[in-house]
Amino acid sequence: MSDIAGKTILATFFHAPDRHAVEVLEETVIAIAADGQIEAVIRPGAVGYDTAHESADLTLPDGCYVLPGFVDCHVHAPQYPQLGQALDVPLEVWLQQYTFPLEARYADLDFARRSYSTLVEDLLASGTTTALYFATIHQEATRLLADICLEKGQRALVGKVVMDNAESCPPYYRDTSAEAAIANTRAFIDYVRAHPGNAAARVLPVVTPRFIPSCTDEALAGLGQLVAECGCHVQTHCSESDWAHGYVLDRHGVTDAESLDRFGLLTRRSVLAHSNFLSDADMDRVVARGAGVAHCALSNAYFANSVFPLRAALERGMHVGLGTDISGGPSGSLFEAARMTIAASRMLESGVDPALPAASRGRPDSRIDFATAFHLATAGGGVLLDLPIGQFAPGFRFDAMVIDTCPRDGGIRLLAQSSQEDILQKIVHTANRANITRVWVDGRSVSSR
Amino acid sequence: MSDIAGKTILATFFHAPDRHAVEVLEETVIAIAADGQIEAVIRPGAVGYDTAHESADLTLPDGCYVLPGFVDCHVHAPQYPQLGQALDVPLEVWLQQYTFPLEARYADLDFARRSYSTLVEDLLASGTTTALYFATIHQEATRLLADICLEKGQRALVGKVVMDNAESCPPYYRDTSAEAAIANTRAFIDYVRAHPGNAAARVLPVVTPRFIPSCTDEALAGLGQLVAECGCHVQTHCSESDWAHGYVLDRHGVTDAESLDRFGLLTRRSVLAHSNFLSDADMDRVVARGAGVAHCALSNAYFANSVFPLRAALERGMHVGLGTDISGGPSGSLFEAARMTIAASRMLESGVDPALPAASRGRPDSRIDFATAFHLATAGGGVLLDLPIGQFAPGFRFDAMVIDTCPRDGGIRLLAQSSQEDILQKIVHTANRANITRVWVDGRSVSSR
Ligand SMILES: [Zn+2]
Ligand SMILES: [Zn+2]
Repeated sequence: MSDIAGKTILATFFHAPDRHAVEVLEETVIAIAADGQIEAVIRPGAVGYDTAHESADLTLPDGCYVLPGFVDCHVHAPQYPQLGQALDVPLEVWLQQYTFPLEARYADLDFARRSYSTLVEDLLASGTTTALYFATIHQEATRLLADICLEKGQRALVGKVVMDNAESCPPYYRDTSAEAAIANTRAFIDYVRAHPGNAAARVLPVVTPRFIPSCTDEALAGLGQLVAECGCHVQTHCSESDWAHGYVLDRHGVTDAESLDRFGLLTRRSVLAHSNFLSDADMDRVVARGAGVAHCALSNAYFANSVFPLRAALERGMHVGLGTDISGGPSGSLFEAARMTIAASRMLESGVDPALPAASRGRPDSRIDFATAFHLATAGGGVLLDLPIGQFAPGFRFDAMVIDTCPRDGGIRLLAQSSQEDILQKIVHTANRANITRVWVDGRSVSSR
Repeated sequence: MSDIAGKTILATFFHAPDRHAVEVLEETVIAIAADGQIEAVIRPGAVGYDTAHESADLTLPDGCYVLPGFVDCHVHAPQYPQLGQALDVPLEVWLQQYTFPLEARYADLDFARRSYSTLVEDLLASGTTTALYFATIHQEATRLLADICLEKGQRALVGKVVMDNAESCPPYYRDTSAEAAIANTRAFIDYVRAHPGNAAARVLPVVTPRFIPSCTDEALAGLGQLVAECGCHVQTHCSESDWAHGYVLDRHGVTDAESLDRFGLLTRRSVLAHSNFLSDADMDRVVARGAGVAHCALSNAYFANSVFPLRAALERGMHVGLGTDISGGPSGSLFEAARMTIAASRMLESGVDPALPAASRGRPDSRIDFATAFHLATAGGGVLLDLPIGQFAPGFRFDAMVIDTCPRDGGIRLLAQSSQEDILQKIVHTANRANITRVWVDGRSVSSR
């Protein structure tokens, strides 16, 4: 079992095109075109099913299920070496003593190659078929990250980080000027788009102001113009913490979302990381622009002073995907991000302090269930990124993972009879890396065990 | 590398006898007696170190570290088949539609053997060398769980569950009377203590009223008498949720802790699961009795309506250990319980609802760090259970796990230089089952890969 592009596969598939429900495609045949696009999804009873069933190129054994690949909508690629480290220090110490010095090391391309290669391999092995990456300020190392994603076959959106504000960025790690930051961003966009290995546009460039505090207005305005010209994706941090939210109010007199909008940085392809402190008006603005949020539940526990009101955002029609926020969060697995998304939504709903009366402890109607978390980690991420990924339907890309529920080293135990939906709930809550036995991007095998 | 009883081991050990700090025993030799007790901990510079270093029976390779085995202070053994399932339903549905029917199945010894064997093997492979188990109401299946722990070498405290209250327990799954429940508990205690395979008392019996709502006063009083006679450990649920807390106030006119105390169930060897809603007076009472709490952060997110005020309890001098609360929580790994313990403490401190002002959102000074979580998962659990486990010191049992930081299938990546303490923080946050390459209980190898 290796590449599946240009072939057909017979298996039981789980996906969640809609946030309210899981769909089980039992004993279904999917036909994949040579370029990795799904051509047909043939379910039992459909015309041609018997023939497709008998002639399938690949039939998965019992106990195996196919899920859409995960879409990680917020990753700081250079921070992977400090995953699970320095989580017990305040944000300012975390940035100045740990994170900026680490990111500065990517001037060294040997270090960058070793670190980025390990990261991309690990994310693929964890089922992440698409990742939205912050790189560093460095042109060469950021190109290298794009090269590595192309070489290893991961769908990726990559941004050279812009941070030119001398008041908040250390002298050893910042863009030399707003002009240089913009020119470098443009050069990186050109590099990715003209890359000879990127004819299928599997890697996309992203305009990436780190967050308003680290950028001058000149840089923000220039990046907004660039977005208008090139139609790129945009990624940044938005209203993450009390401090960050207050900083922008002080400097610009408006919220992050409104300020980004004024600079032309709030588009259909803009991904706002965190966004815990969006006001109702901010939410309406984000929805009106077709932009959305990368919800990072693991990292929010450490750095965001609150839980993102996910369900309220979804009920307003906002696009939301999940992010691991490596290394603000301690895990690179979207399974673990999904689990914390569910748990954090429950904690927001019930509240946390037992000394308060139940009625005033939490925020009612905030919980989401495993089906919604699974949707957000897959199809929801696809919608957020405006890409045809995350579900099994004609016209979508065949980005997928095989979950084998049987290995002893895996986390899943089927000791009592379960419905198919129960099995998916068990997968969401207990699968580990050993359960992910094959990963495809565009039907091409990118990880196996 | 297999059994280490009666031998010496040279390695770098991490432990945390105190909750404030991690101790790194670098390049240290530990001598273990034939019965599994630690005889000597010989650190560099100590008398006899050079000789001990040269003649060590086992020397761990670079990249490997030894940690104390984990002490899981709250596990419902029969619920393992539904791990990661039914977490999106209310507690009442969870109990009546899922949990009680599942527990009732342990009347079937074949089912019990398959399920319990898998559980004990999985917990050992996850580094849990000691577990405090709720079994079911069944005499035979509970004996079988004790047998399996003895056979597989896990240190275990096992209780036949008492639930005789017809008002809250279904007819198909409850003790037939208070007398029968007490007689059955006594019979199980006798069985464990007289077990020919249990000369070392590695398995201990536990008096186990499920929680006050499921027991009659007659049963509670009888169990209290039994504890006075036999000096056993006690385990029960205490003030877990708004509902449970209110129920006991209604029925007994006092809190759970006070009620348990009146029945003689609050002793130096009593473990109260959850206990989120303990009042200040309750905390003082628990501390005065030398009892303590099994904190179950993973499960509390789903069923406890709040976060246990862990740091406040520790600052009062309360004994606290960690529990996975299989299957109220979706993971059997104490690594994952420790991670959620840290994250939940941060969420209690900062609060969860971004719509509230920062000053009134959370509960200040609630956070604990990875060192405290690691302490609670090991040495703290040992203190709670009044057993000499969880640290590397003469007189303690050699219950330990080897963490290999190198396997590709593991979760740990050492891509940049780290201090030894940083490495432990990375282990706590990112280790998975593939990193646990050897587990010993009393120096006996009980799991390896
Ligand atoms: Zn971030
Ligand atoms: Zn429990």
